[in-house]
Amino acid sequence: MQRSYRLEEIAYIINADLKGDPDCLISGIMTLQNAKPGQISFLDNHRYLKYLAQTKASAVILRPEHQSKVPSSCHVLVTVDPYLAFAKITERFKKKNVYGMGMHSTCIIGKNCNIDPSASIAPFCVLGNNVCLEQGVIIGSGCSIGDGVTIGAKSRLEPNVTLYADTIIGENVIIHSGSVIGSDGFGLAKDKENWVKIPQLGKVQIANDVEIGANVTIDRGALEDTFIDTGVKLDNQIQIGHNVHIGANTAIAGCTGIAGSTRIGKNCMIGGGVCINGHIEIADNVNITGSSSIVHSIRTSGTYSSTQSIQPQREWQKNSARFRQLDKIARRLKKIENFFSQKVKILEKSK
Amino acid sequence: MQRSYRLEEIAYIINADLKGDPDCLISGIMTLQNAKPGQISFLDNHRYLKYLAQTKASAVILRPEHQSKVPSSCHVLVTVDPYLAFAKITERFKKKNVYGMGMHSTCIIGKNCNIDPSASIAPFCVLGNNVCLEQGVIIGSGCSIGDGVTIGAKSRLEPNVTLYADTIIGENVIIHSGSVIGSDGFGLAKDKENWVKIPQLGKVQIANDVEIGANVTIDRGALEDTFIDTGVKLDNQIQIGHNVHIGANTAIAGCTGIAGSTRIGKNCMIGGGVCINGHIEIADNVNITGSSSIVHSIRTSGTYSSTQSIQPQREWQKNSARFRQLDKIARRLKKIENFFSQKVKILEKSK
Amino acid sequence: MQRSYRLEEIAYIINADLKGDPDCLISGIMTLQNAKPGQISFLDNHRYLKYLAQTKASAVILRPEHQSKVPSSCHVLVTVDPYLAFAKITERFKKKNVYGMGMHSTCIIGKNCNIDPSASIAPFCVLGNNVCLEQGVIIGSGCSIGDGVTIGAKSRLEPNVTLYADTIIGENVIIHSGSVIGSDGFGLAKDKENWVKIPQLGKVQIANDVEIGANVTIDRGALEDTFIDTGVKLDNQIQIGHNVHIGANTAIAGCTGIAGSTRIGKNCMIGGGVCINGHIEIADNVNITGSSSIVHSIRTSGTYSSTQSIQPQREWQKNSARFRQLDKIARRLKKIENFFSQKVKILEKSK
Repeated sequence: MQRSYRLEEIAYIINADLKGDPDCLISGIMTLQNAKPGQISFLDNHRYLKYLAQTKASAVILRPEHQSKVPSSCHVLVTVDPYLAFAKITERFKKKNVYGMGMHSTCIIGKNCNIDPSASIAPFCVLGNNVCLEQGVIIGSGCSIGDGVTIGAKSRLEPNVTLYADTIIGENVIIHSGSVIGSDGFGLAKDKENWVKIPQLGKVQIANDVEIGANVTIDRGALEDTFIDTGVKLDNQIQIGHNVHIGANTAIAGCTGIAGSTRIGKNCMIGGGVCINGHIEIADNVNITGSSSIVHSIRTSGTYSSTQSIQPQREWQKNSARFRQLDKIARRLKKIENFFSQKVKILEKSK
Repeated sequence: MQRSYRLEEIAYIINADLKGDPDCLISGIMTLQNAKPGQISFLDNHRYLKYLAQTKASAVILRPEHQSKVPSSCHVLVTVDPYLAFAKITERFKKKNVYGMGMHSTCIIGKNCNIDPSASIAPFCVLGNNVCLEQGVIIGSGCSIGDGVTIGAKSRLEPNVTLYADTIIGENVIIHSGSVIGSDGFGLAKDKENWVKIPQLGKVQIANDVEIGANVTIDRGALEDTFIDTGVKLDNQIQIGHNVHIGANTAIAGCTGIAGSTRIGKNCMIGGGVCINGHIEIADNVNITGSSSIVHSIRTSGTYSSTQSIQPQREWQKNSARFRQLDKIARRLKKIENFFSQKVKILEKSK
Repeated sequence: MQRSYRLEEIAYIINADLKGDPDCLISGIMTLQNAKPGQISFLDNHRYLKYLAQTKASAVILRPEHQSKVPSSCHVLVTVDPYLAFAKITERFKKKNVYGMGMHSTCIIGKNCNIDPSASIAPFCVLGNNVCLEQGVIIGSGCSIGDGVTIGAKSRLEPNVTLYADTIIGENVIIHSGSVIGSDGFGLAKDKENWVKIPQLGKVQIANDVEIGANVTIDRGALEDTFIDTGVKLDNQIQIGHNVHIGANTAIAGCTGIAGSTRIGKNCMIGGGVCINGHIEIADNVNITGSSSIVHSIRTSGTYSSTQSIQPQREWQKNSARFRQLDKIARRLKKIENFFSQKVKILEKSK
């Protein structure tokens, strides 16, 4: 069981302005529409404002402008960033996992490994030679960790993660299940009709405070290293090619693919299902909307898009067919513009 | 070895009208173009009509209108839905796996688990505490099953599946290899330049009769649960964000991604490679063509598309360049329309 | 430690024309911008020409036309294909893995398996019945290999690969971690509102010299087999549906999905994030740019595209809104063309 918090404690934790009973006991956190008495909720995204008046939450975290719409049964915590406040208080209601059970007897460990006694390794993991696990590292069951891998303090691998040889993982990193870090980059040279594989001599480096979702793939560098900088957050099913660099605190949503040797700046936000070409550069503070394609470098911060949203199929087909004639349409327009201005001139003269 | 069936038995199983020898023995099922004597085939998709005249199958399942095109060597089973008939008869020619071998001695099982004696668990699985496996559950090798997971009767996990803690799986569910259910949703709040992780307190619920392909990822809810309703069918490499609800009998093809908190209705058919935005709603009975993007809610059933198919690159580049001027082109057209109607009026007056 | 090579040896290995000291010792290979003395580098992609003048490499492999731009400290190896030369020499600087350790004692092996004594199987692998591993096969830890699987000589599975029953793998094949070969195709028939699963009776065949990236999924055939021909190279996170055929030496970049029953020719190059429809055919020698969608068959070799690259969001939104009116725009243009030609005729007559 989780402990309960007095509302005053919560106000202190999230640094909010409390309007209501400081002794009200809060035992959990839930959405506006499903909260029960005794729970706290929050309002950040305006789409959910419609649920505020009916909420059964005992307290709500919200911005100053929404105070007036709170039901009278509900205490209020006012802050300029309810979403950040939500993040902080959610941490308090999380189940605490009990780890620290050491290495399971089934694990197979290579030679010359340096495993901190505080590390925890679940059953059926295989560690190669010269692996280093620092203080408090947690490895889920069924992980494969190649020769020469280093994992920094307090990092955690969920079950069934694969780290190829020489991968370097920083501190406080989380890697979710099914992810594969350090597999060979897609390096091929043509020799007449046949492909010759280019051995991938680089590795993958993951800096501190990175989170990597489930079933992500990050390829090792061809010669230099693939590099994911501090605080980068990657959602599920992302593919990162060899030699890519991703700058600090950039967040990337699911199913996005980044081709080889591309460099992405700091503090970027990249939507889901985005395709990013290889050998290009993206500046700092760039936002890309979901489902866009990026063919060329982006030199200036800002928001970019090539997301073409759906229409009813009949309309779409008509417009899409016209798209295939678009160059011709533009030329026809130009022609009529030219023709018109001449004709009119002639006709005007002839008056 | 599989058993053979008399054609009369097959007609009975699929409820078709038999025209031919009821005693003809059928030992397998194959496509029109590759069937051999002794095998049965079917014709559903009109693309394959061209193979009908030459087929060596001993019998063909087809619609009434195709009867006349069957070679004389071939017996006929007439039905209005040959594809459904094919599904039913294929079941009879499937290799039966022999399971029921109980739990392999290598498995590591947590405390207070409730495992039905008829369940089968392959080698190297790890089950956390308080796991419940109901009657006839089959778990492939190398699966990781977190604390508090429940799996309903006759459900099957193929090898190397990962279920995070508290995941609830219904009855008759199939989950293919490499899939990860219940990993953390992509919940982050900004605190100046840094991202603060929002602990994901919800879980994943999968209802009865769901099939989940290989390397699918389904995130646990932030506060409430991610929910996949009865009879949903998911192809490979699908990504489903936190708090998503998918309605009963909706089928989704491979590589599609659904961002967080989106609700998809019942009986939808969603193509492959589709990107669906977060926080939107899609009505029941909606079809989406492959490779579309959905940014806004869809309130009405029907077929929707934003699939822009390829052209030869030179033509595409010209059209694509014009697309980037499309607003200007439309304004130029408007201008010439206005100008033209005025000029013509003036010229007509001046006559 | 890797051995060093005299420049003359390298010239011989890559069949290049040496201009410089044949006895110069080379201990590694690195990019132009990061090479140190004692290393060799190469110049292929013209984007990297800017780094040539400043390189600290002891030798550079390049084309005849770039010789004049090499710093004087640097020996030169001239060839018409520096990228292929790079591939060949990189092979020499690769760490050699030491395998050949036989089968680990933890592995669980089924009945009637035929495992060559030179095969190597890492811990926690599970092999079904009737599995055949030929000479020199290497299986990483945690792999699941179903009944009746055959793996040809010198093929290698990285850790945590899953092969379903009856999969056939040729010689010299590499399969990276997390990939799933032979899972059920997405075959469903509707029976009123419910989906009926079509058992997938085919299998997957992978020919010789194929490389398959990490977290790839390849479905088994419905009746016939899914087939990947000799020398095909697949990047990470590719999805291949049931019954697909991919022709020899075709290379496909990451995150591409191919729907069922599609046939792709030989020597194609398909970019990343491409969506390919089911039941279509693509000719030999077709190139597809990344992020394209292919709805219809491609009968002629050439380069095809539907990649719509990003614009700043404001511009994009304007153009995208116009796209939704494109058919109307085209009709308005046609109308004004017609109207104009008539009006002008009348006006001219009236003169």
